[in-house]
Amino acid sequence: MARVNEAILARAHSDVEMIPDVAHHLIDSGGKRLRPMLTVAAAQMCGYRGDHHIKLAAAVEFMHTATLLHDDVVDESELRRGKKAARMLWGNQASVLVGDYLLGQAFKMMVETRSLDALRILSHAAAVIAEGEVLQLAAQKDTSTTEDAYLRIIDAKTAALFSAAGEVGAAIAEHPRAEQQALQSYGRNLGLAFQLIDDALDYSGKQALLGKSVGDDFREGKITLPVVLAYRRGDEEERAFWARVLQDGQQAEDDLPHAISLIETHGAIDDTIERARHYGAIAREALAIFPDSDHKHALVKAVDFCIDRAY
Amino acid sequence: MARVNEAILARAHSDVEMIPDVAHHLIDSGGKRLRPMLTVAAAQMCGYRGDHHIKLAAAVEFMHTATLLHDDVVDESELRRGKKAARMLWGNQASVLVGDYLLGQAFKMMVETRSLDALRILSHAAAVIAEGEVLQLAAQKDTSTTEDAYLRIIDAKTAALFSAAGEVGAAIAEHPRAEQQALQSYGRNLGLAFQLIDDALDYSGKQALLGKSVGDDFREGKITLPVVLAYRRGDEEERAFWARVLQDGQQAEDDLPHAISLIETHGAIDDTIERARHYGAIAREALAIFPDSDHKHALVKAVDFCIDRAY
Repeated sequence: MARVNEAILARAHSDVEMIPDVAHHLIDSGGKRLRPMLTVAAAQMCGYRGDHHIKLAAAVEFMHTATLLHDDVVDESELRRGKKAARMLWGNQASVLVGDYLLGQAFKMMVETRSLDALRILSHAAAVIAEGEVLQLAAQKDTSTTEDAYLRIIDAKTAALFSAAGEVGAAIAEHPRAEQQALQSYGRNLGLAFQLIDDALDYSGKQALLGKSVGDDFREGKITLPVVLAYRRGDEEERAFWARVLQDGQQAEDDLPHAISLIETHGAIDDTIERARHYGAIAREALAIFPDSDHKHALVKAVDFCIDRAY
Repeated sequence: MARVNEAILARAHSDVEMIPDVAHHLIDSGGKRLRPMLTVAAAQMCGYRGDHHIKLAAAVEFMHTATLLHDDVVDESELRRGKKAARMLWGNQASVLVGDYLLGQAFKMMVETRSLDALRILSHAAAVIAEGEVLQLAAQKDTSTTEDAYLRIIDAKTAALFSAAGEVGAAIAEHPRAEQQALQSYGRNLGLAFQLIDDALDYSGKQALLGKSVGDDFREGKITLPVVLAYRRGDEEERAFWARVLQDGQQAEDDLPHAISLIETHGAIDDTIERARHYGAIAREALAIFPDSDHKHALVKAVDFCIDRAY
């Protein structure tokens, strides 16, 4: 992972000063590097001996970073990873363009590996992620979103990159199709679990304890599973509340605490975490075909890490 | 070109309704399809017999369309190709995300050609274009921008895609390095000429006759060559005028006519067109190594078309 970090820093460089400034703002603020870790561990678990997995891992992280930059513009977010969002410091314009630059650099790195399989997997993911974001935009503020529709969104906007990150690890090792598929399934289900926990944490006191802000999704009118469940389980008055605060965007100061209490009353956090455990279990299962190794152990631990954040 | 159009329409499809809506808004509004034409003509001039050049041409147009969508957000433009900009109808959010989707689709099409050369050329262009846009953002409103700095910007933001569009035509035909380089040079210089004429037209009565709006660059505070020349050739009072309207963005109703008259007084439009003719000549020269053919003729005509728009 130290070599992945080196590659990330080297490739975020540009003679156009604003680019490394914006990129480093996000890169240095310490994301978990979960996605590139999947690529590295998957490649090593498949016995890969070259060093192209480093480039692919860095490309995966750049795709993720580009998405974050564009997301902040789309969501009009003010904070990202506990710091001011890049768009608050350099403007929406720089966030859009530096995101585009990082995506271009990501594809350059993939091409350097000369793996058409890896290129196919990651370019497909790029299109699916954007599709998922548009889908989320369309569903935004619609409190009647079903659990299925919500799952379809997070499958595209989050799980697709986790899935591709795992799959390219096997692809670069030129491992059999079955093992690529296993890692694809592992990544996808881990991604679903990860996003579900993220969405639960946004309404949870645990998040506040970690020094992170609570209620970002609420303020942006995002319909996540805790809301989907609370809305469906609520009475007429509660549904009117959700419609006012999320659909109409009319939020008063004590609306967030009220939303949190409704979500808790209906056990919506616990059930969101329960769903995450379900996908986490499928992710673990997908690894069963691989013999024991340190790398497999790391991938199993990643599932535990995702779920345990909730406790 | 009919097959390129088919590919463009087919690949702008998505089950997420907003995506084809936004994409078609731009695609149907009839761009000139100049860039994909370069790819098709270049491949055919190099005797290419397959059909991968269609996919590459569509990918080039998607990269261009994605750039337009993101540019409109960055420039806060209200019009594009004589119609309301997509961001005015669907919002900045959809413009950013549908741009990302089209970029993803572009890379998917490139991967389908299995040409690592084409992928290398176009992914490099994607990074350079974004770099050029950031450069332009940094130079925006700086009236002391030199002609060299301006050229560096249009080289990256416009010429890089023209250059790549030509080069991939030779690359897919697996033609010798010298012919790839000739088409790269042709495309780059055509792109420079094209952008120079565009920038001249923005301050020209010819543009108004074509039913297009005049002064978009002026209103956005963009420093283009007509301004660079007029600023450098002007006296103190004129420079103070340019600083007020472009740097400080304080524009009154009769400032645009005044700007146009200053640009005309200093012969800045004529000299911008003269520069365009210079690059156009280099573009024509670059084609000299190819034997005569209808396709070569089409590429020469593209240069004439770009320059003749100014008259």
